[in-house]
Parts: sequence; structure tokens; C-alpha cells
Amino acid sequence: MNGIPGKSGVVVRNIRRAEGSSIEALARFGVATVHEAQGRKGLLDAALRPIQQDVTIAGSALTVLVPPGDNWMFHVAVEQCKPGDLLIVAMTSPCTDGYFGDLLATSLKARGVVGLVTDGGVRDTRTLREMRFPVWSRAIHAQGTVKETLGAVNVPIVCAGQWVNPGDVVLADDDGVVVVRRQEAGQVVEASRRRSALEEQKRKRLAAGELGLDLYDMRARLAEKGLKYFDTLDEAGD
Amino acid sequence: MNGIPGKSGVVVRNIRRAEGSSIEALARFGVATVHEAQGRKGLLDAALRPIQQDVTIAGSALTVLVPPGDNWMFHVAVEQCKPGDLLIVAMTSPCTDGYFGDLLATSLKARGVVGLVTDGGVRDTRTLREMRFPVWSRAIHAQGTVKETLGAVNVPIVCAGQWVNPGDVVLADDDGVVVVRRQEAGQVVEASRRRSALEEQKRKRLAAGELGLDLYDMRARLAEKGLKYFDTLDEAGD
Amino acid sequence: MNGIPGKSGVVVRNIRRAEGSSIEALARFGVATVHEAQGRKGLLDAALRPIQQDVTIAGSALTVLVPPGDNWMFHVAVEQCKPGDLLIVAMTSPCTDGYFGDLLATSLKARGVVGLVTDGGVRDTRTLREMRFPVWSRAIHAQGTVKETLGAVNVPIVCAGQWVNPGDVVLADDDGVVVVRRQEAGQVVEASRRRSALEEQKRKRLAAGELGLDLYDMRARLAEKGLKYFDTLDEAGD
Amino acid sequence: MNGIPGKSGVVVRNIRRAEGSSIEALARFGVATVHEAQGRKGLLDAALRPIQQDVTIAGSALTVLVPPGDNWMFHVAVEQCKPGDLLIVAMTSPCTDGYFGDLLATSLKARGVVGLVTDGGVRDTRTLREMRFPVWSRAIHAQGTVKETLGAVNVPIVCAGQWVNPGDVVLADDDGVVVVRRQEAGQVVEASRRRSALEEQKRKRLAAGELGLDLYDMRARLAEKGLKYFDTLDEAGD
Amino acid sequence: MNGIPGKSGVVVRNIRRAEGSSIEALARFGVATVHEAQGRKGLLDAALRPIQQDVTIAGSALTVLVPPGDNWMFHVAVEQCKPGDLLIVAMTSPCTDGYFGDLLATSLKARGVVGLVTDGGVRDTRTLREMRFPVWSRAIHAQGTVKETLGAVNVPIVCAGQWVNPGDVVLADDDGVVVVRRQEAGQVVEASRRRSALEEQKRKRLAAGELGLDLYDMRARLAEKGLKYFDTLDEAGD
Amino acid sequence: MNGIPGKSGVVVRNIRRAEGSSIEALARFGVATVHEAQGRKGLLDAALRPIQQDVTIAGSALTVLVPPGDNWMFHVAVEQCKPGDLLIVAMTSPCTDGYFGDLLATSLKARGVVGLVTDGGVRDTRTLREMRFPVWSRAIHAQGTVKETLGAVNVPIVCAGQWVNPGDVVLADDDGVVVVRRQEAGQVVEASRRRSALEEQKRKRLAAGELGLDLYDMRARLAEKGLKYFDTLDEAGD
Repeated sequence: MNGIPGKSGVVVRNIRRAEGSSIEALARFGVATVHEAQGRKGLLDAALRPIQQDVTIAGSALTVLVPPGDNWMFHVAVEQCKPGDLLIVAMTSPCTDGYFGDLLATSLKARGVVGLVTDGGVRDTRTLREMRFPVWSRAIHAQGTVKETLGAVNVPIVCAGQWVNPGDVVLADDDGVVVVRRQEAGQVVEASRRRSALEEQKRKRLAAGELGLDLYDMRARLAEKGLKYFDTLDEAGD
Repeated sequence: MNGIPGKSGVVVRNIRRAEGSSIEALARFGVATVHEAQGRKGLLDAALRPIQQDVTIAGSALTVLVPPGDNWMFHVAVEQCKPGDLLIVAMTSPCTDGYFGDLLATSLKARGVVGLVTDGGVRDTRTLREMRFPVWSRAIHAQGTVKETLGAVNVPIVCAGQWVNPGDVVLADDDGVVVVRRQEAGQVVEASRRRSALEEQKRKRLAAGELGLDLYDMRARLAEKGLKYFDTLDEAGD
Repeated sequence: MNGIPGKSGVVVRNIRRAEGSSIEALARFGVATVHEAQGRKGLLDAALRPIQQDVTIAGSALTVLVPPGDNWMFHVAVEQCKPGDLLIVAMTSPCTDGYFGDLLATSLKARGVVGLVTDGGVRDTRTLREMRFPVWSRAIHAQGTVKETLGAVNVPIVCAGQWVNPGDVVLADDDGVVVVRRQEAGQVVEASRRRSALEEQKRKRLAAGELGLDLYDMRARLAEKGLKYFDTLDEAGD
Repeated sequence: MNGIPGKSGVVVRNIRRAEGSSIEALARFGVATVHEAQGRKGLLDAALRPIQQDVTIAGSALTVLVPPGDNWMFHVAVEQCKPGDLLIVAMTSPCTDGYFGDLLATSLKARGVVGLVTDGGVRDTRTLREMRFPVWSRAIHAQGTVKETLGAVNVPIVCAGQWVNPGDVVLADDDGVVVVRRQEAGQVVEASRRRSALEEQKRKRLAAGELGLDLYDMRARLAEKGLKYFDTLDEAGD
Repeated sequence: MNGIPGKSGVVVRNIRRAEGSSIEALARFGVATVHEAQGRKGLLDAALRPIQQDVTIAGSALTVLVPPGDNWMFHVAVEQCKPGDLLIVAMTSPCTDGYFGDLLATSLKARGVVGLVTDGGVRDTRTLREMRFPVWSRAIHAQGTVKETLGAVNVPIVCAGQWVNPGDVVLADDDGVVVVRRQEAGQVVEASRRRSALEEQKRKRLAAGELGLDLYDMRARLAEKGLKYFDTLDEAGD
Repeated sequence: MNGIPGKSGVVVRNIRRAEGSSIEALARFGVATVHEAQGRKGLLDAALRPIQQDVTIAGSALTVLVPPGDNWMFHVAVEQCKPGDLLIVAMTSPCTDGYFGDLLATSLKARGVVGLVTDGGVRDTRTLREMRFPVWSRAIHAQGTVKETLGAVNVPIVCAGQWVNPGDVVLADDDGVVVVRRQEAGQVVEASRRRSALEEQKRKRLAAGELGLDLYDMRARLAEKGLKYFDTLDEAGD
């Protein structure tokens, strides 16, 4: 794990996958909750957006590294996929071509892959929605790709600003995409549960009209920082 | 009103709010119509986009100024909100973090706030849509914020390129967001009504096949400017 | 056709339109398929996005060239439109103002125009969706325009990076927009049909679990390029 | 000052200008210092960049509002200029056309204008540098403009995110552009002086090797916030 | 010339080149002047920027079309170059990799090529400046490319939004890049000369303090459009 | 090294630094060469640009992680710096505020730090150039920051798309920034030397007019891929 992602021509067959129970549990929380629960880390660049609405998925990362404008490695990756995997793809150099469409999605669905997260572009988006194959991508672009240059499968990658290891858990919803280390998945599930329960309580009190200022006990600290209340804008002396 | 927005540590309790009747009336027109009716001014940057579709809201501006990555002032603002208010938030420096989520929305709904317009990011977007709390933002971003630095509430702000005073009317729909001065709201309602009625008439004539060239009497002025008609591209000598 | 697009003050009345049968046939394929079928050319910039979802249209290009912030030529263009035309609009200089709204759409619908593709901005988007008038644009912007400066109608234009002649076929769906030369439309229909049939066969085999590696016979070429398989990441020596 | 900027067809002849002594004094400080000294407010969007290097200017704002792609108002503005003025220009809608070139600069120089700040584009940049007429703009673009539509001169504008009144002081250097209210210019000069003197002292101590941690007395507060020091990364347990 | 650029695998050996005398003449004017002189057309996207300052070049277009991340065709193009050519390169899909560096520049210099205009990225920029080989590009990026996929040489291309034929004149300076049709080069030289002479006269009068309002006789037309002068902002009734 | 960067409140005092001899050797090559020599990996996002021209630096990475709009950790980091270090700074969330100016640069210079690479903004750029303290940043922005929230020093970070460990070698020049693993620095120096020597030979042959097509023996492979030469564009049948 000391190298810099970028090594090409390599496929790793056996990876340790995240446990199904952790994946299932994380899928019940949203990206925002899990991101907070693990200490505000692991969030991919907000430029990755879903092509569908109101869908949440989680899976064990099957990582792919591809050259600009070349989707050959997607085909190599399919063979390595197992049910519950989520394909996550980074480019060796920025490129938003339409690397991925409905044929590859058909292949992935046949192998039980739960969805795709990619730092590049995709196409056939209407068909992908009809197939109910969820996708998060940087772009929608009909531009085709070639199959000439090698990349890598199941090596650590940096995707949209985050280091992802094969077998990490990737969680995606309308808010974005977050990665959870395989080794930390269990404790992040627990932390997310606690946070979620706590939020549920707060939600009830806030819905009943209680103020966050009181619920979070903020008034003293605000005053200490120097917050001043004025009756009118003129008094505030803008 | 001579100062430059940016003063921190200030909360103004009493502001003059826009009249409910003007707000209601404006909400029946779209942003494009109101923007035209008031002389093509007051439009916020087109980068602010709705997280939901086919929703129009209008409200009296409750202004908030927040530092980058810090949502403390949202909580301070909630206490100042009254039914019919619309929260409009600017950053002291550009930041697209997820300042706002479902808990704050629960609080605002409990106080009768009609929606949020923000120059920053939001999260929990699926839940916000389920709650039917409408939001316009520059970004969707799960990235959390801290509560360490003061901002201001109910002071004039520049949000997405427009100066907004507390109590101005803010109108938002699928086309974007427009601000109407509180003092001008009545006359803008009238102008919007006239424009809308006029457009309804035009719509009928255009739907019946009449040409805009004739309806707007454009032919003479086009000829005067030098517009030439040719039978073929070759004649035009491109 | 040797000139550089940009000539203003010109309207061409008679253009050769694409054949209805070719247009209809192309409309049954998606943009991605047609783009591939004609040799990966003719794709407009991916920044043009639809304001509606899951709609595909094709039409004979009625080209319009407009100055920044001035939509006068849209009105001139309407008169030249015939049923089956698709309005495609380029700016003489980049501008994302809201050139186009529901009144112009009403006029175009009355003349049988199938939709709009524009390198600028549009407004009244909710109404446009309600009218079922499909639009692809670079931006949604309520900002109005003036009627002061001439442009051109039915001259060749460069729109979103592609040269478009009046009478070419323009095809648009959720993946983007592609232009097909009028003279090549027939053969592109044929090539799209072949490609589509071929893809249907592949889809079945892939859905049944066959691998693309075998279906496309990729293994030997991958090995020749130097692809290496390892059992673990450690062996790969990353 | 209650209106929303955007009113067209207006030229104001007499404005109160900032005092020459304040302008001169501010020009001796950098944008970063003045921005801090006036409480971190008044900074224009960082997208405005200089076309030259290592130049600082300050002047009394002569404000101009122009339509997209139309530079007519520049010519109207010239007549209103006096020595020591700085032309600051906003667009009624975003446009990066080359509104301004060497002929207008010649006119402005002849009237003693110190430079240009514009939210649009400029051209003839090499000649402008040779003439030593300093410019800050959003873009460099050779695209020409027309003279068809009115704007306004010497009305309040929102330029690159900041409200600017005619007669405010505008200061620009390699770091960007900041506006100082005319009424506050004197006190901002004083605050800048104090800050600058203080920084000079700090600079000497820091250059001598003293640590900011000690100079600013940060250690206790950092510890209180929970900062932990570890001898190695392993101990930190990343 | 009816096809859509994008055809790959083609090299054209004999093209008609622009006349040396026209090229030389155009190089004496700036991009802004030539762009105006030929009727405000032919300007490439303003995103193309020079890597050096205060350099103007003109040459006969040697066109190259390359796939994303693949610079093989640059090497094919070198053989076709003659003294006075200017290499202009478009991508079949957007890509800002560093296609071009000092070795290719050495080759081009050896063949008398005057410079490079590219819609992609370049590297070795410091060395390129030292070699005095002028370059305009969309990006500076050290990212390397491969040599696996064919493109085309000396076919018409759309580069940065403009159609360019082999043998057209390309002119580049600090303001950007403009293309002039080979067949129109002579008359554009003449038009540029007239415009330039006219500007020289105006420059003198403006430098002497004459107002553009008078020089261009604008006052009557401004009044007719409704421009109003007010003594103070209050009178203008903002 | 299994964690996700983002842990806050941590300072690591002892890190293994890259060897001075490797650093010095790498500094003699450019970023493009080193990037190629280590297998086209380790390149930071091209959006990081230098504030000066024609400067190359290399140093041992002293990593800093900071919250948006908060530069407190810069001060903490200074104490950990040793001669030959290069400060490299990532944000926990995107922010282009001016975190860094001449006072911090004075401190770093006093401790022998060779320069700064940051994914955020900087200010006082003119002074930084005068001080000859080299900086690569995502933005130039006068916007100030606060000192309220902790980050981390000397933990692994993802900066501009690349994972960087404390003690890795960072190399920066006009083309961008590349990171070399500490453990691989020696072999990358060797590979860079070989590549550089090879390039020197090629440069001479290319300068003498030899074609890359022959030097790299490309003709057979181009023919095999199907490259066709035509005498004229008409023959090519475009």
C-alpha cells in the first residue's frame, strides 16, 4: 500500500471483501450520517452526481483504474465481480467520456453488482434508469471510448479525491458518495446507529418547536464569542 | 444601509416584513415574469438550483450571513423566524459545504418558514424532498460544518450577486430566484399582473398560428436594421 | 460553405430538409447508438442538458445564430419553420441568458416544430415541461434578452462545438445531442439498425452471464499488451 | 439606495468622490491588508484577475452598468470621468465579451482615470500593458461588442459579488480587488496603518525565528481544543 | 467538406497553403483587429491561452485531430509540415492531457513551424518559452499520453468552437486565436489595414481629449433611445 | 496507513524525511520527466498553478490538513519544519480562501522551508515573489481565514487528487506538481536520469531534422492500425 496509484497492467483476483452485514447496515443510513459518524472523512468530490433520484446503495468496492477515453478495463473487471460488489472507477487522467452504458450494466447486473461510481462519464442513462442499475458519475456524455490501453483492477485508487482500497465499503445516495474502510465498517455502523437514534430524538423535539439554541445549549458560548442582539438594524449601526 | 455586508456578531430582532398579500400575489407568477415586470433586475446567479422540481415559493427574507464551513448562525436565525419567512443565506467567502440538512429543516418548518435559498451547499436532499421543504442551493454536498465562528442575522447581504435586505420578498421557482424590494412589492405585483394578462392574450394568438413578427410589429424595424432574405444559401453568398 | 459562421443580417428561406423517414428512423435509436454508428462524430458538447427526462426527439435542423443577450432572431426564425423542424441555436459569443420561454414555444408548437437545442439559456422551464415542448440548453436562466441586433437564420452554424448545416438531422435524448449530415442520414439509419440489432444479441448473451472478455474475444490481445493477473495485492507488489 | 441595481438609461453627473488623501493612503497598502483592516468585508470575487503583474492602484469609483455584449455605456461614462477616478463595470447579465480595448483606454488616460475593474472581458491586452493602463477583468476575450442598448453610469452596482457606490474607494493589486465605503475610507486608512505597523513588527520577530505559536500565544488554546502531539504516525493510530 | 469532422486514420499530403504575404501582413495586426475586420467571426474559444506573453504569430493551418490522451498523430503531422505552417490541434473528445512538449517542439522548429494552437494540454512550458516556440493551449498539464489510436492530419477540424480548414490562416496573440479562411485572407488584410489606419486616427483624437461621444456622433442616438442625465442620484430616483 | 485522511487534532513530531541527495537530484529534472520516469503516476491536479514563473523546487513533504477557511494548523506546522521541507496542504473540504501570506512565508523561510504547495488559496502574492518564496496554489484570494478549528500535521493527506505521506518527495515547476514516494525516490532519480539522457539524444537528432516517425520506428505500426495517406482531401473523401 506504499505505492502511488497508477500502476497499469495489473489485475488482482482475490481481495478481502467487506462483510455483507456491515454493508446492509450502512445502506440503511444516508451518506451524510455515515460521513459524520466516521469523523467527517471519506467523502468523494461533490461533482459526482446520481443519474437517478431517491436511490441509496452500498457495496464492497471493486476498484478499476482506466486511461482517458479507454474502457477496456471495465470488461476485465466484470470477470472479477461477485454479488454485492460495487464497481468504483478512477481515471489515470481526467476524462468525462461515456465509458459505460447499458451493455456493461447488463453484464454487471448478471453478476450481482449493486451499482457504479465513476469519476468519468456514462451514457444510455435512460436505459440504465429503466434497468434500475444505479450510477453516480462526473458527467453524462454519449462520447464513445476505445479499447487499446491497459489499466488495473483491484488495486488501491484515488477516486474523486478519496483513496479507495478494494473491499472498502462504498455508500452512495442523493447527497453523494462516501467510502468506509473495510476494517472500520463495523464500528462505523455502530457510530451511525447512535448518531441516527440521537437525531431521531432531536427531530421530535425540534418538530415540537424547541429551539436548537436551547437543545444544543448554545446561548452561553455565543455570548462569550461576542454575539450581540439589537432591536433594529439602525441600532446595529450596520 | 451604507456599510458593506460582512459585519459579524450581529442579530437584528425586529425587521419590517413584506406584506402577506404581496407575497401571496407574487407566488402566483413565475420568476421570469416578475423579473421582467420589475425591469429586469433582482435576479440571483443562475448557479442556484432547486433540489426539487415544479415548486414555486415566495416569502419575506430572513437574511443570514455565515463563515465558510460554519453553520452556527443557522441555529441563531431559527429563533428569529416567523410564519411566511424565507431563509436566505450568504457566505462571507465562497463555500459549498453541506450547511443545511433535515434537522434544521424540521426546525424551520415548525416555525412556518416557507423554504431556503442559499449560496452554499445542502444535504439530506432526499429527506428534504420527502418533507416537502423546498430548497435552492449552489451545491449538494454531504460535507459537514462546524459551529465555531459568528456571522450575522437580519442584516443586508449580497447573496449570489444580489443585495438582499431583511424583509424583501424572495421568489423562487424552477427558473431561479429573484428578489423584490419590500417597498416595491405592491407595484411589482401590479406590473406582473399586467404582464401576465398581456402574455395570456399573446399566447392565444401565437397558439392560433399568428407570427410574433406581426404580433410585435417587427418587420419594419428588422428591414431598417438591414435584414435581408434570400431564397437559397448560395444567393446569400455565405 | 467555405465561409466562417458569423455572418449577420441574413435569412435563407429555402433549405433542403432531411427526409421524414430518416428522421423517424433515427428517433428510434438513442444518441449514443447513432454517434457510434456514424463513426463517433457529430456529438455536441456534453454541457447541453435536457430540461425534461426520458424524452428523445429528432428533426430537420432550422439553424439560428443570435448575438449575446438578444433573441430577436428567434422571432424571425419562427416564420421559416415547417412541421418536423427542430430549432438549433448558436450564439456569436458565449451567453447563457434566458433567450427562450413559453411564448416562443407556443409559436413553435403551432408550426409543428419538434423541439429546441440551444447553446444558450432558457426560462419558463416548468411551463415548457407542462406543454411537452422538449428543450436541450446550456443553462436555465430567468434573465431576459433584448431585440436590438441582427443575427442569421438558416446559415451553417457551429453550435456547442459542432458544425450544423440547415437541413441536417439533429437527434437529442438524455445522453446529449448529435448531428447527422442530411446526405448521410440514410446510411446512418442503416448503420444504427445493424449496430442496434448486434447490441440486442450481445445484451441477451451478457444477461445470461457470458463475459465480454469472451464475447469480444479480448483475452489474447490483453495478454499480448502485458496484462498480468495476481492472486493478491501483495503479489502484485503495488 | 433602496432600489435594486439594474435601472437602465440613467447617467448621474455629480457624485461625491472619495478624498484624494484617503485614496493615496490606501494605495500604499495591499488588498489583503485593507480587507483585514476593515473587518474582512468588501472583497470582490477572486475570478477578477489583473492583466499585468506587480501593480497596485486605488481610485474613486466611477460605476458603469452594461448589457451583455454591448459597450455603449463605456463611451457615455468617459465624459463623466475626472482625474483619480477608477472605472468599475458590472454587467446586467454575465458576459465575458471583450468590451474594452486600447482606444477606450486612450480616452480614459486622457482624462486621468487610474485604471479599470470589470466583471466582463477585455482585449488589446498587450497594448494595454504597453500603455501602462492597469486592468482587472474576469476574462481576456477578443470578441467585440455592439452599441445598441442602454445601461447606466454612476448608479450603485453589484460588481463581482460586491455592492459598489459611485465615489467609494476601489483598491486593486495582484491579490484581487476590494471596495471601501467613501464614508469609511478615513478610518480604514487608520486601521490599515495600525495593522501594517503591527505586521512589520511581527515580520521581524518571525524572520528571527520566533514561532507564531508563541508570538500569538496559541499553545493553551490549541491544547484546550484537544490538539495532541505524537512522536510517530503509528502512535497517532491513524 | 460536407462531412462531420471526426474521420480517423487519414493523412492528406497536399493542401493549398495560405500565401506567405497574407500571413505576414496579418501577423502585423492583432487578433482583435482582424476579428473585427472580417466581421466578428472566426474567434476560437477564449479558454485557449498563451504560455508566453507579448508574442504574436500567424501561419498556414496544418490541422491535426487526436483522440483523448493519445498524441500519436502529432508525430505523423510533423512529416507534413512546411516552413510557415502553424500546427492546430483538436481532440475528438475533450481532454487536457499534456500531449505536447519540448521534443515535439524541437521537431517542429526544425521544419520551420511557427507555433502551436491546441484545444488540449501541453507540458515542458518553461523549456518551450526558452526555445521561443510559442504555444496557445487550453491547459498546462504534465500528464503524459499514449500512442495507440489513430486520428487524422490535414482534414477540416472544429477546434475550440471554430471550423478550421487545412491552409486557413491562424493568427494568435495575447488576446486569443482567430482563423481566417485562406480564400478571404487577402481581403481581410485589406480590411484590417483600413481599420487599423482608422483606429490610429481615432487614437490621436482620443488621446488629445476628444470624446468618443462626439467622435462617433453618439449623442442623438443615445437621446433617442431614452438616455437621461441627472444631476444627482436622488434626482435619478434609483 | 489504512485510515482515511481526515483525522483532526493530531500532530506527528517525528517523520522519516526523504534523503537530501534524492531531493537535490530530482530538482534537476522537470515534473514532466519525473512523472514519466516513475510510470505516469503521482501527478497532482493541474488546477494547482505557480504564482511565479520559471522556478523549480523539490522538498520533503511536511503535510498539513486544514478545515475550510481556517489556517490555524499552518502555525502549528511551522514548528515541525526543518530545512529542506516543503509544506503541502490539503483542505478537509474544498475552499480557496487566502490561508497563506507573507508573514507565514517569513516564518517558513526562517526555518529553511523550500516552498508551499496548497489545494487552497494564497495572498500577498507580489510580496511572496519579492521574497522569492515559491508557491503553487489552487487560487489567489485576499479573503482572510480564522483560527478556530483543529486540523492535523504530518499525517497522510489526499491533496489535489494524490495521496501524500509525510516525508515523500514533492517536486514542483511550471508544469505542475508531482509526488514521489520516499521509498522510491532513489530509483525514480535513476529512471529520470536515464530518461533525460535518452531525451537529450533524441533532441539532437530531432533538431537535425530526423523525423519521430523514423526515430521511434512508428511507420509499420501506423500502417497496421490502418493509417491511410491521400494526396488530396477530395481523395480522402471526407
